[in-house]
Amino acid sequence: MAKLSDSEISSQLAKLPNWGLKDGKLHREYKFSDFAHAFGFMATAAPLIEKRDHHPEWANVYNRVTVDLTTHDAGGVTQKDVDLAALLEGIAKKLA
Amino acid sequence: MAKLSDSEISSQLAKLPNWGLKDGKLHREYKFSDFAHAFGFMATAAPLIEKRDHHPEWANVYNRVTVDLTTHDAGGVTQKDVDLAALLEGIAKKLA
Amino acid sequence: MAKLSDSEISSQLAKLPNWGLKDGKLHREYKFSDFAHAFGFMATAAPLIEKRDHHPEWANVYNRVTVDLTTHDAGGVTQKDVDLAALLEGIAKKLA
Amino acid sequence: MAKLSDSEISSQLAKLPNWGLKDGKLHREYKFSDFAHAFGFMATAAPLIEKRDHHPEWANVYNRVTVDLTTHDAGGVTQKDVDLAALLEGIAKKLA
Repeated sequence: MAKLSDSEISSQLAKLPNWGLKDGKLHREYKFSDFAHAFGFMATAAPLIEKRDHHPEWANVYNRVTVDLTTHDAGGVTQKDVDLAALLEGIAKKLA
Repeated sequence: MAKLSDSEISSQLAKLPNWGLKDGKLHREYKFSDFAHAFGFMATAAPLIEKRDHHPEWANVYNRVTVDLTTHDAGGVTQKDVDLAALLEGIAKKLA
Repeated sequence: MAKLSDSEISSQLAKLPNWGLKDGKLHREYKFSDFAHAFGFMATAAPLIEKRDHHPEWANVYNRVTVDLTTHDAGGVTQKDVDLAALLEGIAKKLA
Repeated sequence: MAKLSDSEISSQLAKLPNWGLKDGKLHREYKFSDFAHAFGFMATAAPLIEKRDHHPEWANVYNRVTVDLTTHDAGGVTQKDVDLAALLEGIAKKLA
């Protein structure tokens, strides 16, 4: 899995309008209606994350979830991160 | 918490069109896109269920979740069950 | 994945002392300290279940979880069910 | 809910040997066997967290969960944080 170049990342981010690049990682902050929905977002994603064996860095406080995506083995953002961002975006949109 | 009469249950079910009465319990079967969304439905509801201290009987197989609601202490369906049905319906609608 | 014979199932169940055969499925009833631990058992298992793409029939009421395992494609109990039973048993033992 | 003094926090931390104070918050880093157990820890705690209406700051990467506890309304660490630390410690010990 090859590290994406800056222009490749920019191109991919065009399809993920709410995601950005922060400290070299794909970054997104979600705000849900309450803790239950924030946790439910993580819980809906958890089985699919484990299935693809590619895990996010994510943090939760009450109704907020912050996500950072990178591929350690590749030393940067790869297509795996872009795909995981798209997966998380789809689930978050439902629960938002 | 008083047991609802049959006519009170009928009146409440009018507001919950996909719910019915089965074996004296409020009953609903959900079908999601996959296991992750079925589990995510349960996981989003779990904190809110614990908060109100009123728990469902629910079963999951792959993408399906069957729910049965009754209030053991009252020996039948109470307003607590109607309220829990409405809560679950709202979450399921988002994840369906 | 071939259906196990009755003697093969008996042999496997010897290693899973709390599991039995009910209606042709591997069967086990768990009782946890409270709803949170019962749900936590299901949640810890959920990512691993999705990863192996073999899903249980399971039901929860308050602190209880009932599990039934069969392989639909094989028309009976297979090694996949035995392996899933062992996985669930390991997680349940920790949370019990 | 009153903010605890430094000496009160020290006294409480004596009962929570793996917890420390970091940036004015109760702090603990957990390492589990895999992502499923790290997520399972959060999921077991989630209903109990919502019930007491006091939420942690916590972050997960693969098999690790970092927890920071403070009471925003009190501007520091309170007994609520100490109690939540004890709750999380009990669950984590089971799943570790």
